[in-house]
Amino acid sequence: MSLKELIFKTRSHRRFDETYRIDAKTIESLIDLARLSPSGANRQPLKYIYYNSVSDCEKVFPYLAWAGYLTDWPGPDKGERPTAYIIILGDRSVSDIFGVDHGIAAQSIMLGTTEAGLGGCIIGSIKREELGNELSIPDNLEILLILAIGKTVENVIVEEVKNNDVKYWRDNDKNHHVPKRSLAELIIKTK
Amino acid sequence: MSLKELIFKTRSHRRFDETYRIDAKTIESLIDLARLSPSGANRQPLKYIYYNSVSDCEKVFPYLAWAGYLTDWPGPDKGERPTAYIIILGDRSVSDIFGVDHGIAAQSIMLGTTEAGLGGCIIGSIKREELGNELSIPDNLEILLILAIGKTVENVIVEEVKNNDVKYWRDNDKNHHVPKRSLAELIIKTK
Repeated sequence: MSLKELIFKTRSHRRFDETYRIDAKTIESLIDLARLSPSGANRQPLKYIYYNSVSDCEKVFPYLAWAGYLTDWPGPDKGERPTAYIIILGDRSVSDIFGVDHGIAAQSIMLGTTEAGLGGCIIGSIKREELGNELSIPDNLEILLILAIGKTVENVIVEEVKNNDVKYWRDNDKNHHVPKRSLAELIIKTK
Repeated sequence: MSLKELIFKTRSHRRFDETYRIDAKTIESLIDLARLSPSGANRQPLKYIYYNSVSDCEKVFPYLAWAGYLTDWPGPDKGERPTAYIIILGDRSVSDIFGVDHGIAAQSIMLGTTEAGLGGCIIGSIKREELGNELSIPDNLEILLILAIGKTVENVIVEEVKNNDVKYWRDNDKNHHVPKRSLAELIIKTK
């Protein structure tokens, strides 16, 4: 698969086959992709905690917000929830600043999920303090992003932005539509 | 090439064959990879300006800082400088916040450079105001990151971090060594 195909297939997926479990080895190989990715001044201040058991995934789920634009959808129902979570943490004992390291790491991992036949979603809307308490995350580790992963059952359709409306939406057949701006809109020509 | 090989090969390169020029089509195909990458709340607030001519590249170069740990190296000499720059901008007319969108976008583009047989470096240390003036960048566009790209002449060697020292270094044969933390150090096991 070319990189463009891989990136094109790496959409945000929010509904999964919850019977499909993901083993630790697969998850650690995904984190290894982040490990080998760039880090500002090569500081490498990111740490990772992952969960893949049924009971641990149930602990994480309530602290996440899902798909802000789908206002009548509170998130995946039981049976369609993620079967693994990777929490990307910033280790303050290593650095006070994390720059965009976690964005770089998240993209490497999400591309890896696609290559592994999985899918997922980068989640930034997190009840951080409550989740940190629930999971007893050490104080020096700041929750930056959570990657929700599973065997996707969602069909995602990329389409062009119309009328400057970037809100994703779901049709009656549960297809998830994602409007993307055109390349012509993104590239600024000076002079 | 597997994603892991692609990520492993996507190192920071800072010396290039300056006779090798990069055409606009190649650069726009790289930006297209970023276009198709995730964006917080799908806002897509990033814009891109690129430069690939000799004269434009000469304008950009003086405003960038190179390889902070190589204190006796002021950056690439003439003949070894990047032959294209992609400036990642945050469009404040679209959003006040850019989250880690530019990290995600940068990683997609840098992986694309490797696939295209090129190399480069994500640069965050930029004289932003002076460069914005030099290039007449509109006020609503904030300079977030610059990707310096070219045909690399640098040999980069990944090795394990020893004694917690993450500083990259250059040996007498100009090989560039990058210490990376081990996976065991990055994965936190709670309970």
